[in-house]
Amino acid sequence: MGRNVIEVLENHSTLKVVAGVDRLSESTAPFPIFETIEACDVAVDCIIDFSHYSVVPSLIQYAMEHRTPIVICTTGLTDETEKHIIEASKVIPVFRSGNMSLGINLLIALAKKAATLLEDDFDIEIIEKHHNRKVDAPSGTAKMIAEGINDVIKSPKTLLYGRHGNETKRSTNEMTIHAVRGGTIVGEHDVLFAGIDEVITISHSAQSKKVFAKGAVNAALFLESQKPGLYDMNHIFSNI
Amino acid sequence: MGRNVIEVLENHSTLKVVAGVDRLSESTAPFPIFETIEACDVAVDCIIDFSHYSVVPSLIQYAMEHRTPIVICTTGLTDETEKHIIEASKVIPVFRSGNMSLGINLLIALAKKAATLLEDDFDIEIIEKHHNRKVDAPSGTAKMIAEGINDVIKSPKTLLYGRHGNETKRSTNEMTIHAVRGGTIVGEHDVLFAGIDEVITISHSAQSKKVFAKGAVNAALFLESQKPGLYDMNHIFSNI
Amino acid sequence: MGRNVIEVLENHSTLKVVAGVDRLSESTAPFPIFETIEACDVAVDCIIDFSHYSVVPSLIQYAMEHRTPIVICTTGLTDETEKHIIEASKVIPVFRSGNMSLGINLLIALAKKAATLLEDDFDIEIIEKHHNRKVDAPSGTAKMIAEGINDVIKSPKTLLYGRHGNETKRSTNEMTIHAVRGGTIVGEHDVLFAGIDEVITISHSAQSKKVFAKGAVNAALFLESQKPGLYDMNHIFSNI
Amino acid sequence: MGRNVIEVLENHSTLKVVAGVDRLSESTAPFPIFETIEACDVAVDCIIDFSHYSVVPSLIQYAMEHRTPIVICTTGLTDETEKHIIEASKVIPVFRSGNMSLGINLLIALAKKAATLLEDDFDIEIIEKHHNRKVDAPSGTAKMIAEGINDVIKSPKTLLYGRHGNETKRSTNEMTIHAVRGGTIVGEHDVLFAGIDEVITISHSAQSKKVFAKGAVNAALFLESQKPGLYDMNHIFSNI
Repeated sequence: MGRNVIEVLENHSTLKVVAGVDRLSESTAPFPIFETIEACDVAVDCIIDFSHYSVVPSLIQYAMEHRTPIVICTTGLTDETEKHIIEASKVIPVFRSGNMSLGINLLIALAKKAATLLEDDFDIEIIEKHHNRKVDAPSGTAKMIAEGINDVIKSPKTLLYGRHGNETKRSTNEMTIHAVRGGTIVGEHDVLFAGIDEVITISHSAQSKKVFAKGAVNAALFLESQKPGLYDMNHIFSNI
Repeated sequence: MGRNVIEVLENHSTLKVVAGVDRLSESTAPFPIFETIEACDVAVDCIIDFSHYSVVPSLIQYAMEHRTPIVICTTGLTDETEKHIIEASKVIPVFRSGNMSLGINLLIALAKKAATLLEDDFDIEIIEKHHNRKVDAPSGTAKMIAEGINDVIKSPKTLLYGRHGNETKRSTNEMTIHAVRGGTIVGEHDVLFAGIDEVITISHSAQSKKVFAKGAVNAALFLESQKPGLYDMNHIFSNI
Repeated sequence: MGRNVIEVLENHSTLKVVAGVDRLSESTAPFPIFETIEACDVAVDCIIDFSHYSVVPSLIQYAMEHRTPIVICTTGLTDETEKHIIEASKVIPVFRSGNMSLGINLLIALAKKAATLLEDDFDIEIIEKHHNRKVDAPSGTAKMIAEGINDVIKSPKTLLYGRHGNETKRSTNEMTIHAVRGGTIVGEHDVLFAGIDEVITISHSAQSKKVFAKGAVNAALFLESQKPGLYDMNHIFSNI
Repeated sequence: MGRNVIEVLENHSTLKVVAGVDRLSESTAPFPIFETIEACDVAVDCIIDFSHYSVVPSLIQYAMEHRTPIVICTTGLTDETEKHIIEASKVIPVFRSGNMSLGINLLIALAKKAATLLEDDFDIEIIEKHHNRKVDAPSGTAKMIAEGINDVIKSPKTLLYGRHGNETKRSTNEMTIHAVRGGTIVGEHDVLFAGIDEVITISHSAQSKKVFAKGAVNAALFLESQKPGLYDMNHIFSNI
């Protein structure tokens, strides 16, 4: 992911990578790369973290000490680290999200808005497509979408994962997630709202993991003008 | 369209058609049909209008006299009628929209939200598909979408309608509308937001004109609890 | 379906409806309608059948006696009727298909061709979408597609109908059919071939049942120049 | 493209890269890389060419001398080289195609089959989507599809590239190609066949240039069992 962030920032008008942290780097990058964040002696305006849950505490520590905003993209954090983040957010701006893609987060925001309005008259279904090596189904993102919708509608739906049989008529209180698998598909998510004689579909298609780097960079830009606090994608969206 | 409204209300839980107005009706409907609105002697809670611009003034007059909310779906009204509507909206609730489909209006609302957020980093294009007998291109709805987007973004885009040639590289300040024509397609609209390694698409597909009747019925329900005023689809959306 | 056939033939350049058979018709059609085929005293060039399995034997009998080609679109026939059809096909041209839509049959033909070529390197999945009142899943047409593909590939696939769990990695010898249900969707079928960095999709979308009438009319035209025999959609396709 | 071929063959069951030709290589590949084909002293079973038109003659010469099948993927060859290829194909198997993607070639084959059958009753339109830096419109592949269709139908269509105006009703003898541009889309092509109440769509979506390497490898495998001659994708397709 580090390489993806570098690529995204290569031609950026205002942002620049001034240092990296990588335990085993043999990079020939035009900026210093340190083995640990503690070793970093370069002044930075924001930290973007795509690392490992075991490393995150040291990043938070450093960010607090240097009063540096931080974008945390690592998942699977321990409860202790979660508390650490909340403490940190009292003194510095901290951004955190389970999925850093701006597009996916927008998809979720739009789907929630549509679901609120269409709840009574439309059936909602989700179709996601991923490569044939993915071990879990449905995707974490598809679950985020379904849960996001259930959070805002009056009558949350029961999630189902397929249909088969002669008596499988759809109930109005179900939402089915269809997990398609094949080839090297990076990730596609369609949210369908099917009503009387009309269908609304909101879709997201990812081509590479660069979208996560892009989202992290956007979050860094967002933090620039923020007071200490804990932020996520909803803050970027409600800003507009 | 009258038949479509009847069909939509056939099994409605709270609404019922109690009278119709049709100059030449030979209907066997289970409610009276009058040649003109003036002849109507049945008490009604709301008027739904899908008629002709020349008839609209008499409908407004009747609505004002009987203090009856009115949903106006007829387009191509004269300036005089437009003023008449504004006058009427001071004493009764009046609903008006260029496109009564709830779905299309939601599509526009979602596209505007997405455009505001993605404006700087994504290219926007619109693809619409209609039957082969349609004489105009692009569709009025595609224009409504494009104009709606241009209304909310910082740098409105120049609208284009096709690409052909060896030097047609896309400029960042253009938005192209592609009008596909074929068979009996009722109406499909896709709004694409294409960024770095991700694409978001918001789509609407209509199967029949019943969606307009449905939208009018929703508007009637909405008016029930409103004070006098002029309302459109944005009021339904901002309500949530 | 009778009404659909009439509509399809309304403006046809060479074909014309000259008689109908309907037990309970109150039609005001511009041609005679008989209660039974036996009562028909009009000369016809071809019989198109959309009826009930119990009526089909009388149609076949009439067709044989009058040496009239017949298009049989009724499904769920008894074994006896099946034998009757084979006997009839020795003296008259008989056309029969489980799905009369030209488009669906073309979809199946194209999917078979693609599957034969792509079998070793691509994963095949089927997504079908229908209205929320449909009781069976997947659709009969989706099954026809899957079976058609399995008929032509070297290693037929096991059919699955959904994915859910943390250990559901796709096996190369499976083909999953996803049955989406919502609103009033008439019928959509997508066949996906997902390979390394590319996806081929063959899709069919139906807007109404008229497509079946259209297919029956095409079959009638096809029979005009045929010798006695039993024909199906494959004969129309291999003709080109 | 060389790197793409290497990647495709990395885990291949029967094929292996044994040598490369690259004027400026600093590769650390596990096989020798020669500056010119003449310098190559490794025995090879097939040559895959993705080079420059000026280099192709030397490759053909080498292939003829060593009786080695060759897959030529370079485009923009001189007339002289074209003649050279025909000469070569008398003594060795030569494979050549304007687009090496198996998927795109299959798309074209399927579209031709569908067009032949649907010509009289369906309208054909093409939608292609590419990144915003592409300078030409429509894409070469979209043109290949349109020309392929025109080659097989009875009444070839006039190609158009957009629609705009109040009197733009579709004529039955036109086929419009819509060139969508945005973001980093690698390449998508949809061929629509729109008829009465049904639409058939054949689509291809590419994620990377690896699909061309993959196609070249398939061609190499195909050549293995062929006699001297000039082959293209149609030979692979008609083989099945």
